[in-house]
Amino acid sequence: MDNGTQYAPKYFMIAREIIGGIKDGRLKPGMKVPSENEIISRYKVSNTTARKCLQSIEDQGYIKKIKGKGAFVREGSIVRPATRILSFTRNMLEAGLKPSTKVLDVRVLAENYSAEIGGRLYTLRAPVCKIHRLRLADDIPMMLEVRHISLSLCPGIEKEDFTQSLYDIYEKRYRHRLSNVYQELGATMIDSGIQDFFDLSEPIPALLVNGVSFCGREVILEMEKSIYRGDKYRFLVGAT
Amino acid sequence: MDNGTQYAPKYFMIAREIIGGIKDGRLKPGMKVPSENEIISRYKVSNTTARKCLQSIEDQGYIKKIKGKGAFVREGSIVRPATRILSFTRNMLEAGLKPSTKVLDVRVLAENYSAEIGGRLYTLRAPVCKIHRLRLADDIPMMLEVRHISLSLCPGIEKEDFTQSLYDIYEKRYRHRLSNVYQELGATMIDSGIQDFFDLSEPIPALLVNGVSFCGREVILEMEKSIYRGDKYRFLVGAT
Repeated sequence: MDNGTQYAPKYFMIAREIIGGIKDGRLKPGMKVPSENEIISRYKVSNTTARKCLQSIEDQGYIKKIKGKGAFVREGSIVRPATRILSFTRNMLEAGLKPSTKVLDVRVLAENYSAEIGGRLYTLRAPVCKIHRLRLADDIPMMLEVRHISLSLCPGIEKEDFTQSLYDIYEKRYRHRLSNVYQELGATMIDSGIQDFFDLSEPIPALLVNGVSFCGREVILEMEKSIYRGDKYRFLVGAT
Repeated sequence: MDNGTQYAPKYFMIAREIIGGIKDGRLKPGMKVPSENEIISRYKVSNTTARKCLQSIEDQGYIKKIKGKGAFVREGSIVRPATRILSFTRNMLEAGLKPSTKVLDVRVLAENYSAEIGGRLYTLRAPVCKIHRLRLADDIPMMLEVRHISLSLCPGIEKEDFTQSLYDIYEKRYRHRLSNVYQELGATMIDSGIQDFFDLSEPIPALLVNGVSFCGREVILEMEKSIYRGDKYRFLVGAT
Protein backbone atom coordinates (compact mmCIF):
# COMPACT_ATOMS: atom_id res chain seq x y z
CA MET A 1 0.00 0.00 0.00
CA ASP A 2 2.87 2.35 0.66
CA ASN A 3 3.35 2.99 -3.03
CA GLY A 4 -0.33 3.85 -3.39
CA THR A 5 0.53 7.47 -4.15
CA GLN A 6 2.40 6.77 -7.34
CA TYR A 7 -0.95 6.08 -8.99
CA ALA A 8 -2.76 8.98 -7.28
CA PRO A 9 -4.29 11.71 -9.45
CA LYS A 10 -2.78 15.19 -9.60
CA TYR A 11 -5.34 16.82 -7.28
CA PHE A 12 -4.49 14.22 -4.68
CA MET A 13 -0.73 14.82 -4.92
CA ILE A 14 -1.28 18.53 -4.31
CA ALA A 15 -3.73 17.82 -1.49
CA ARG A 16 -1.13 15.51 0.02
CA GLU A 17 1.50 18.23 -0.09
CA ILE A 18 -0.79 20.74 1.61
CA ILE A 19 -1.86 18.14 4.19
CA GLY A 20 1.83 17.41 4.75
CA GLY A 21 2.29 21.08 5.63
CA ILE A 22 -0.58 20.85 8.12
CA LYS A 23 0.80 17.66 9.65
CA ASP A 24 4.35 18.96 10.13
CA GLY A 25 3.14 22.27 11.53
CA ARG A 26 4.12 24.68 8.72
CA LEU A 27 0.38 25.32 8.36
CA LYS A 28 -1.09 25.70 11.85
CA PRO A 29 -4.71 25.52 13.00
CA GLY A 30 -6.52 28.74 12.06
CA MET A 31 -4.11 29.57 9.22
CA LYS A 32 -5.41 30.08 5.71
CA VAL A 33 -4.57 27.44 3.10
CA PRO A 34 -3.86 28.34 -0.56
CA SER A 35 -6.94 29.44 -2.48
CA GLU A 36 -8.15 27.86 -5.72
CA ASN A 37 -6.43 30.59 -7.74
CA GLU A 38 -3.17 30.24 -5.81
CA ILE A 39 -3.19 26.48 -6.46
CA ILE A 40 -3.87 27.06 -10.19
CA SER A 41 -0.91 29.43 -10.59
CA ARG A 42 1.49 27.64 -8.24
CA TYR A 43 1.00 24.11 -9.61
CA LYS A 44 -0.09 25.01 -13.19
CA VAL A 45 -3.31 22.99 -12.97
CA SER A 46 -6.88 23.53 -14.14
CA ASN A 47 -9.53 25.05 -11.91
CA THR A 48 -11.28 21.64 -11.80
CA THR A 49 -8.13 20.09 -10.33
CA ALA A 50 -7.69 22.96 -7.85
CA ARG A 51 -11.31 22.69 -6.74
CA LYS A 52 -11.09 18.90 -6.34
CA CYS A 53 -7.89 19.34 -4.37
CA LEU A 54 -9.47 21.69 -1.83
CA GLN A 55 -12.59 19.52 -1.70
CA SER A 56 -10.45 16.48 -0.94
CA ILE A 57 -8.59 18.29 1.87
CA GLU A 58 -11.93 19.40 3.29
CA ASP A 59 -13.44 15.89 3.00
CA GLN A 60 -10.51 14.52 4.96
CA GLY A 61 -11.30 16.97 7.73
CA TYR A 62 -8.16 19.12 7.62
CA ILE A 63 -9.73 22.41 6.59
CA LYS A 64 -12.93 24.31 7.03
CA LYS A 65 -14.32 26.69 4.42
CA ILE A 66 -15.68 30.01 5.62
CA LYS A 67 -17.91 31.75 3.09
CA GLY A 68 -16.23 34.72 1.41
CA LYS A 69 -13.06 34.26 3.50
CA GLY A 70 -11.37 31.12 2.21
CA ALA A 71 -10.35 27.80 3.71
CA PHE A 72 -8.64 27.50 7.09
CA VAL A 73 -6.76 24.73 8.87
CA ARG A 74 -8.85 22.91 11.44
CA GLU A 75 -7.59 21.53 14.70
CA GLY A 76 -6.07 18.16 13.90
CA SER A 77 -7.89 14.86 14.23
CA ILE A 78 -6.73 12.06 16.45
CA VAL A 79 -7.03 8.46 15.40
CA ARG A 80 -7.53 6.04 18.24
CA PRO A 81 -6.94 2.35 17.58
CA ALA A 82 -10.06 0.78 19.05
CA THR A 83 -8.85 -2.80 19.33
CA ARG A 84 -5.77 -2.03 21.41
CA ILE A 85 -5.93 -1.17 25.10
CA LEU A 86 -4.51 2.31 25.18
CA SER A 87 -4.80 5.02 27.80
CA PHE A 88 -5.79 8.53 26.77
CA THR A 89 -2.40 9.68 28.04
CA ARG A 90 -0.44 7.30 25.84
CA ASN A 91 -2.74 7.87 22.85
CA MET A 92 -2.00 11.62 23.04
CA LEU A 93 1.74 11.15 23.55
CA GLU A 94 1.88 8.87 20.50
CA ALA A 95 0.05 11.58 18.51
CA GLY A 96 2.72 14.08 19.59
CA LEU A 97 0.38 16.02 21.89
CA LYS A 98 0.72 17.00 25.54
CA PRO A 99 -2.01 15.30 27.58
CA SER A 100 -3.44 16.86 30.72
CA THR A 101 -6.37 16.13 32.99
CA LYS A 102 -8.81 18.20 35.00
CA VAL A 103 -10.44 16.24 37.82
CA LEU A 104 -14.04 17.40 38.18
CA ASP A 105 -15.34 15.09 40.88
CA VAL A 106 -14.33 12.04 42.91
CA ARG A 107 -16.63 10.12 45.21
CA VAL A 108 -17.06 6.77 46.91
CA LEU A 109 -20.41 5.06 46.36
CA ALA A 110 -21.94 2.25 48.36
CA GLU A 111 -24.09 1.06 45.45
CA ASN A 112 -23.42 -1.39 42.64
CA TYR A 113 -22.99 0.16 39.22
CA SER A 114 -24.64 -1.56 36.24
CA ALA A 115 -24.71 -0.87 32.53
CA GLU A 116 -25.70 -2.75 29.41
CA ILE A 117 -22.96 -3.03 26.80
CA GLY A 118 -23.48 -4.89 23.56
CA GLY A 119 -26.82 -6.23 24.82
CA ARG A 120 -25.31 -7.67 27.98
CA LEU A 121 -25.64 -6.45 31.54
CA TYR A 122 -22.42 -5.81 33.46
CA THR A 123 -22.38 -5.04 37.16
CA LEU A 124 -19.51 -3.61 39.15
CA ARG A 125 -20.10 -4.48 42.78
CA ALA A 126 -20.08 -1.90 45.55
CA PRO A 127 -18.14 -0.14 46.89
CA VAL A 128 -17.06 1.82 43.84
CA CYS A 129 -15.04 4.95 43.27
CA LYS A 130 -16.66 7.28 40.75
CA ILE A 131 -14.40 9.73 38.92
CA HIS A 132 -15.45 12.52 36.62
CA ARG A 133 -12.64 13.99 34.51
CA LEU A 134 -11.99 16.24 31.56
CA ARG A 135 -9.05 15.18 29.39
CA LEU A 136 -7.13 17.69 27.33
CA ALA A 137 -4.48 17.60 24.61
CA ASP A 138 -2.24 20.64 24.18
CA ASP A 139 -4.70 22.34 26.55
CA ILE A 140 -7.69 21.73 24.26
CA PRO A 141 -10.58 19.80 25.88
CA MET A 142 -10.94 16.51 24.04
CA MET A 143 -12.93 14.05 26.10
CA LEU A 144 -15.20 14.00 29.12
CA GLU A 145 -15.36 10.78 31.11
CA VAL A 146 -17.04 9.12 34.04
CA ARG A 147 -15.32 6.05 35.41
CA HIS A 148 -16.51 3.64 38.05
CA ILE A 149 -13.68 1.68 39.64
CA SER A 150 -13.88 -1.38 41.89
CA LEU A 151 -12.80 -0.41 45.40
CA SER A 152 -12.44 -4.07 46.34
CA LEU A 153 -9.75 -4.40 43.68
CA CYS A 154 -8.29 -0.93 44.27
CA PRO A 155 -8.74 -0.10 47.98
CA GLY A 156 -7.92 3.52 48.81
CA ILE A 157 -7.75 4.62 45.16
CA GLU A 158 -10.06 7.56 45.94
CA LYS A 159 -7.07 9.28 47.56
CA GLU A 160 -4.86 9.04 44.45
CA ASP A 161 -3.93 11.96 42.22
CA PHE A 162 -6.26 11.51 39.25
CA THR A 163 -4.45 13.92 36.99
CA GLN A 164 -2.30 10.84 36.26
CA SER A 165 -3.18 7.96 33.93
CA LEU A 166 -5.53 5.57 35.73
CA TYR A 167 -3.92 2.64 33.96
CA ASP A 168 -0.60 3.64 35.54
CA ILE A 169 -2.22 3.69 38.99
CA TYR A 170 -3.78 0.26 38.43
CA GLU A 171 -0.46 -1.19 37.40
CA LYS A 172 2.01 0.55 39.66
CA ARG A 173 0.03 0.66 42.88
CA TYR A 174 -2.26 -2.36 42.58
CA ARG A 175 -0.42 -4.58 40.10
CA HIS A 176 -3.60 -4.91 38.04
CA ARG A 177 -3.16 -5.02 34.32
CA LEU A 178 -6.20 -4.74 32.04
CA SER A 179 -6.67 -8.00 30.16
CA ASN A 180 -9.51 -6.95 27.87
CA VAL A 181 -12.01 -4.19 27.27
CA TYR A 182 -15.45 -4.17 25.60
CA GLN A 183 -16.66 -0.90 24.22
CA GLU A 184 -19.83 0.20 22.54
CA LEU A 185 -19.38 3.20 20.26
CA GLY A 186 -22.38 5.37 19.49
CA ALA A 187 -23.16 8.87 18.31
CA THR A 188 -24.36 11.70 20.50
CA MET A 189 -24.26 15.49 20.74
CA ILE A 190 -22.12 17.78 22.83
CA ASP A 191 -24.79 20.33 23.60
CA SER A 192 -26.15 22.68 26.26
CA GLY A 193 -25.40 20.48 29.27
CA ILE A 194 -21.71 19.86 28.61
CA GLN A 195 -20.76 22.34 25.87
CA ASP A 196 -19.06 24.58 28.44
CA PHE A 197 -16.54 21.89 29.38
CA PHE A 198 -15.37 21.86 25.77
CA ASP A 199 -15.33 25.67 25.35
CA LEU A 200 -17.77 25.28 22.48
CA SER A 201 -20.23 27.98 21.51
CA GLU A 202 -22.28 25.63 19.32
CA PRO A 203 -23.36 21.99 19.66
CA ILE A 204 -21.27 19.43 17.73
CA PRO A 205 -21.66 15.70 17.10
CA ALA A 206 -19.59 13.40 19.28
CA LEU A 207 -18.75 9.77 19.95
CA LEU A 208 -20.22 8.13 23.00
CA VAL A 209 -18.19 5.26 24.46
CA ASN A 210 -19.65 2.82 26.96
CA GLY A 211 -17.06 0.36 28.14
CA VAL A 212 -16.18 -2.33 30.63
CA SER A 213 -12.58 -3.27 31.49
CA PHE A 214 -11.47 -6.57 32.92
CA CYS A 215 -8.35 -7.63 34.76
CA GLY A 216 -8.39 -11.36 34.38
CA ARG A 217 -11.27 -13.55 33.35
CA GLU A 218 -14.68 -12.00 34.07
CA VAL A 219 -13.26 -9.75 36.79
CA ILE A 220 -14.46 -6.19 36.20
CA LEU A 221 -11.93 -3.57 37.25
CA GLU A 222 -13.71 -0.50 35.93
CA MET A 223 -16.54 0.74 33.73
CA GLU A 224 -16.41 3.83 31.59
CA LYS A 225 -18.76 6.28 29.92
CA SER A 226 -16.96 8.86 27.79
CA ILE A 227 -17.77 11.50 25.22
CA TYR A 228 -15.13 12.19 22.56
CA ARG A 229 -15.59 15.29 20.42
CA GLY A 230 -16.38 14.31 16.85
CA ASP A 231 -14.33 17.05 15.22
CA LYS A 232 -11.14 15.68 16.81
CA TYR A 233 -11.54 11.97 17.11
CA ARG A 234 -11.85 8.90 14.99
CA PHE A 235 -11.70 5.29 16.11
CA LEU A 236 -9.86 2.82 13.95
CA VAL A 237 -11.12 -0.77 13.76
CA GLY A 238 -9.90 -3.78 11.83
CA ALA A 239 -12.33 -6.59 10.99
CA THR A 240 -11.53 -10.09 9.79
CA MET B 1 -21.14 -12.37 34.21
CA ASP B 2 -24.44 -14.10 33.57
CA ASN B 3 -25.39 -13.98 37.19
CA GLY B 4 -24.66 -10.26 37.33
CA THR B 5 -28.33 -9.47 37.90
CA GLN B 6 -28.57 -11.17 41.24
CA TYR B 7 -26.59 -8.26 42.71
CA ALA B 8 -28.40 -5.57 40.73
CA PRO B 9 -30.28 -2.85 42.60
CA LYS B 10 -34.07 -2.71 42.62
CA TYR B 11 -34.38 0.11 40.08
CA PHE B 12 -32.31 -1.96 37.69
CA MET B 13 -34.46 -5.07 38.11
CA ILE B 14 -37.58 -3.07 37.26
CA ALA B 15 -35.82 -1.37 34.35
CA ARG B 16 -34.80 -4.81 33.14
CA GLU B 17 -38.38 -6.04 33.26
CA ILE B 18 -39.62 -3.04 31.27
CA ILE B 19 -36.75 -3.36 28.78
CA GLY B 20 -37.63 -7.06 28.49
CA GLY B 21 -41.13 -6.00 27.42
CA ILE B 22 -39.64 -3.71 24.79
CA LYS B 23 -37.31 -6.42 23.54
CA ASP B 24 -39.95 -9.10 23.19
CA GLY B 25 -42.41 -6.73 21.52
CA ARG B 26 -45.05 -6.38 24.25
CA LEU B 27 -44.09 -2.69 24.34
CA LYS B 28 -43.72 -1.51 20.76
CA PRO B 29 -41.97 1.61 19.41
CA GLY B 30 -44.14 4.68 20.04
CA MET B 31 -46.00 3.08 22.95
CA LYS B 32 -46.02 4.74 26.36
CA VAL B 33 -44.05 3.08 29.17
CA PRO B 34 -45.26 3.10 32.80
CA SER B 35 -44.99 6.53 34.47
CA GLU B 36 -43.13 7.18 37.72
CA ASN B 37 -46.41 6.96 39.66
CA GLU B 38 -47.40 3.72 37.96
CA ILE B 39 -44.01 2.20 38.82
CA ILE B 40 -44.35 3.35 42.47
CA SER B 41 -47.75 1.72 42.91
CA ARG B 42 -47.11 -1.40 40.80
CA TYR B 43 -43.74 -2.33 42.35
CA LYS B 44 -44.16 -0.71 45.80
CA VAL B 45 -41.00 1.32 45.52
CA SER B 46 -39.99 4.87 46.45
CA ASN B 47 -40.18 7.73 43.97
CA THR B 48 -36.35 7.86 43.95
CA THR B 49 -36.24 4.26 42.76
CA ALA B 50 -38.95 4.88 40.16
CA ARG B 51 -37.12 7.94 38.86
CA LYS B 52 -33.79 6.10 38.68
CA CYS B 53 -35.50 3.24 36.89
CA LEU B 54 -36.89 5.47 34.13
CA GLN B 55 -33.58 7.36 33.92
CA SER B 56 -31.73 4.09 33.48
CA ILE B 57 -34.07 2.94 30.69
CA GLU B 58 -33.62 6.31 29.01
CA ASP B 59 -29.81 6.22 29.40
CA GLN B 60 -29.78 2.84 27.71
CA GLY B 61 -31.58 4.36 24.75
CA TYR B 62 -34.85 2.45 24.95
CA ILE B 63 -37.20 5.33 25.68
CA LYS B 64 -37.56 9.00 24.92
CA LYS B 65 -39.18 11.47 27.30
CA ILE B 66 -41.56 13.98 25.82
CA LYS B 67 -42.28 16.96 28.10
CA GLY B 68 -45.70 16.82 29.69
CA LYS B 69 -46.59 13.61 27.84
CA GLY B 70 -44.51 10.85 29.40
CA ALA B 71 -41.88 8.39 28.18
CA PHE B 72 -42.26 6.45 24.93
CA VAL B 73 -40.52 3.44 23.46
CA ARG B 74 -37.91 4.36 20.87
CA GLU B 75 -37.13 2.39 17.78
CA GLY B 76 -34.73 -0.37 18.87
CA SER B 77 -30.97 -0.04 18.66
CA ILE B 78 -28.80 -2.34 16.61
CA VAL B 79 -25.42 -3.44 17.85
CA ARG B 80 -22.91 -4.11 15.12
CA PRO B 81 -19.81 -6.09 16.01
CA ALA B 82 -17.06 -3.94 14.49
CA THR B 83 -14.27 -6.50 14.45
CA ARG B 84 -16.14 -9.11 12.43
CA ILE B 85 -16.73 -8.80 8.68
CA LEU B 86 -20.49 -8.70 8.46
CA SER B 87 -22.74 -7.48 5.70
CA PHE B 88 -25.59 -5.10 6.52
CA THR B 89 -27.97 -7.80 5.29
CA ARG B 90 -26.67 -10.44 7.68
CA ASN B 91 -26.37 -7.96 10.56
CA MET B 92 -30.09 -7.15 10.18
CA LEU B 93 -31.15 -10.78 9.82
CA GLU B 94 -29.23 -11.67 12.98
CA ALA B 95 -31.04 -8.82 14.77
CA GLY B 96 -34.37 -10.29 13.64
CA LEU B 97 -35.12 -7.49 11.18
CA LYS B 98 -36.01 -7.59 7.49
CA PRO B 99 -33.28 -5.87 5.46
CA SER B 100 -34.01 -4.09 2.20
CA THR B 101 -32.08 -1.80 -0.11
CA LYS B 102 -32.92 1.16 -2.30
CA VAL B 103 -30.37 1.73 -5.07
CA LEU B 104 -29.95 5.48 -5.58
CA ASP B 105 -27.22 5.60 -8.20
CA VAL B 106 -24.75 3.35 -10.04
CA ARG B 107 -21.98 4.57 -12.30
CA VAL B 108 -18.69 3.52 -13.84
CA LEU B 109 -15.79 5.93 -13.30
CA ALA B 110 -12.51 6.09 -15.20
CA GLU B 111 -10.64 7.70 -12.30
CA ASN B 112 -8.79 6.25 -9.33
CA TYR B 113 -10.51 6.65 -5.99
CA SER B 114 -8.39 7.61 -2.98
CA ALA B 115 -9.13 8.12 0.68
CA GLU B 116 -7.13 8.40 3.87
CA ILE B 117 -8.09 5.92 6.56
CA GLY B 118 -6.28 5.82 9.89
CA GLY B 119 -3.68 8.26 8.61
CA ARG B 120 -2.83 6.14 5.60
CA LEU B 121 -3.68 6.77 1.96
CA TYR B 122 -5.49 3.99 0.10
CA THR B 123 -6.08 4.09 -3.63
CA LEU B 124 -8.49 1.95 -5.61
CA ARG B 125 -7.30 1.97 -9.21
CA ALA B 126 -9.58 2.85 -12.12
CA PRO B 127 -11.93 1.74 -13.49
CA VAL B 128 -14.28 1.68 -10.51
CA CYS B 129 -17.98 1.13 -10.06
CA LYS B 130 -19.56 3.66 -7.69
CA ILE B 131 -22.77 2.68 -5.93
CA HIS B 132 -24.97 4.86 -3.80
CA ARG B 133 -27.53 3.00 -1.71
CA LEU B 134 -29.97 3.45 1.14
CA ARG B 135 -30.26 0.43 3.44
CA LEU B 136 -33.41 -0.23 5.43
CA ALA B 137 -34.49 -2.54 8.24
CA ASP B 138 -38.20 -3.35 8.56
CA ASP B 139 -38.67 -0.53 6.03
CA ILE B 140 -36.98 2.06 8.26
CA PRO B 141 -33.98 3.85 6.67
CA MET B 142 -30.88 2.94 8.66
CA MET B 143 -27.77 3.68 6.68
CA LEU B 144 -26.71 5.59 3.61
CA GLU B 145 -23.62 4.35 1.79
CA VAL B 146 -21.32 5.07 -1.11
CA ARG B 147 -19.15 2.19 -2.27
CA HIS B 148 -16.38 2.20 -4.82
CA ILE B 149 -15.67 -1.27 -6.22
CA SER B 150 -12.71 -2.41 -8.31
CA LEU B 151 -13.90 -3.18 -11.84
CA SER B 152 -10.67 -5.03 -12.56
CA LEU B 153 -11.55 -7.48 -9.82
CA CYS B 154 -15.29 -7.45 -10.55
CA PRO B 155 -15.73 -6.87 -14.29
CA GLY B 156 -19.35 -6.20 -15.28
CA ILE B 157 -20.55 -5.75 -11.71
CA GLU B 158 -22.28 -2.49 -12.69
CA LYS B 159 -25.01 -4.60 -14.33
CA GLU B 160 -25.80 -6.56 -11.14
CA ASP B 161 -28.91 -6.14 -9.05
CA PHE B 162 -27.67 -4.05 -6.13
CA THR B 163 -30.70 -4.65 -3.95
CA GLN B 164 -28.78 -7.82 -3.00
CA SER B 165 -25.87 -8.07 -0.55
CA LEU B 166 -22.66 -6.95 -2.29
CA TYR B 167 -20.70 -9.52 -0.32
CA ASP B 168 -22.90 -12.22 -1.86
CA ILE B 169 -22.17 -10.88 -5.36
CA TYR B 170 -18.42 -10.82 -4.67
CA GLU B 171 -18.48 -14.39 -3.46
CA LYS B 172 -20.98 -16.05 -5.76
CA ARG B 173 -20.16 -14.34 -9.02
CA TYR B 174 -16.49 -13.45 -8.62
CA ARG B 175 -15.29 -15.91 -5.98
CA HIS B 176 -13.78 -13.05 -3.98
CA ARG B 177 -13.99 -13.32 -0.26
CA LEU B 178 -13.11 -10.33 1.92
CA SER B 179 -10.01 -11.12 3.96
CA ASN B 180 -9.91 -7.99 6.11
CA VAL B 181 -11.45 -4.56 6.50
CA TYR B 182 -10.13 -1.34 8.06
CA GLN B 183 -12.69 1.15 9.22
CA GLU B 184 -12.47 4.58 10.73
CA LEU B 185 -15.47 5.48 12.88
CA GLY B 186 -16.27 9.14 13.43
CA ALA B 187 -19.20 11.32 14.41
CA THR B 188 -21.22 13.45 12.04
CA MET B 189 -24.72 14.87 11.62
CA ILE B 190 -27.60 13.72 9.48
CA ASP B 191 -28.83 17.16 8.50
CA SER B 192 -30.33 19.22 5.69
CA GLY B 193 -28.51 17.52 2.82
CA ILE B 194 -29.44 13.92 3.61
CA GLN B 195 -32.18 14.18 6.24
CA ASP B 196 -34.84 13.41 3.61
CA PHE B 197 -33.37 9.98 2.89
CA PHE B 198 -33.96 9.07 6.52
CA ASP B 199 -37.47 10.58 6.75
CA LEU B 200 -36.23 12.79 9.57
CA SER B 201 -37.73 16.18 10.31
CA GLU B 202 -34.82 17.21 12.55
CA PRO B 203 -31.06 16.71 12.39
CA ILE B 204 -29.64 13.87 14.50
CA PRO B 205 -26.08 12.75 15.32
CA ALA B 206 -24.74 9.83 13.31
CA LEU B 207 -21.73 7.57 12.88
CA LEU B 208 -19.53 8.10 9.86
CA VAL B 209 -17.69 5.03 8.63
CA ASN B 210 -14.78 5.24 6.20
CA GLY B 211 -13.54 1.83 5.23
CA VAL B 212 -11.33 -0.17 2.92
CA SER B 213 -11.90 -3.88 2.21
CA PHE B 214 -9.27 -6.29 0.99
CA CYS B 215 -9.51 -9.67 -0.71
CA GLY B 216 -6.10 -11.12 -0.12
CA ARG B 217 -2.96 -9.32 0.95
CA GLU B 218 -2.97 -5.62 0.06
CA VAL B 219 -5.50 -6.12 -2.74
CA ILE B 220 -8.27 -3.55 -2.38
CA LEU B 221 -11.66 -4.87 -3.51
CA GLU B 222 -13.80 -1.94 -2.40
CA MET B 223 -13.87 1.25 -0.35
CA GLU B 224 -16.83 2.48 1.64
CA LYS B 225 -18.19 5.68 3.10
CA SER B 226 -21.34 5.18 5.15
CA ILE B 227 -23.53 7.11 7.53
CA TYR B 228 -25.32 5.11 10.25
CA ARG B 229 -28.04 6.87 12.20
CA GLY B 230 -26.95 7.39 15.80
CA ASP B 231 -30.34 6.68 17.33
CA LYS B 232 -30.33 3.14 15.92
CA TYR B 233 -26.74 2.00 15.83
CA ARG B 234 -23.89 1.15 18.09
CA PHE B 235 -20.62 -0.48 17.16
CA LEU B 236 -19.16 -3.05 19.51
CA VAL B 237 -15.38 -3.33 19.84
CA GLY B 238 -13.17 -5.55 21.96
CA ALA B 239 -9.66 -4.43 22.84
CA THR B 240 -6.81 -6.50 24.25
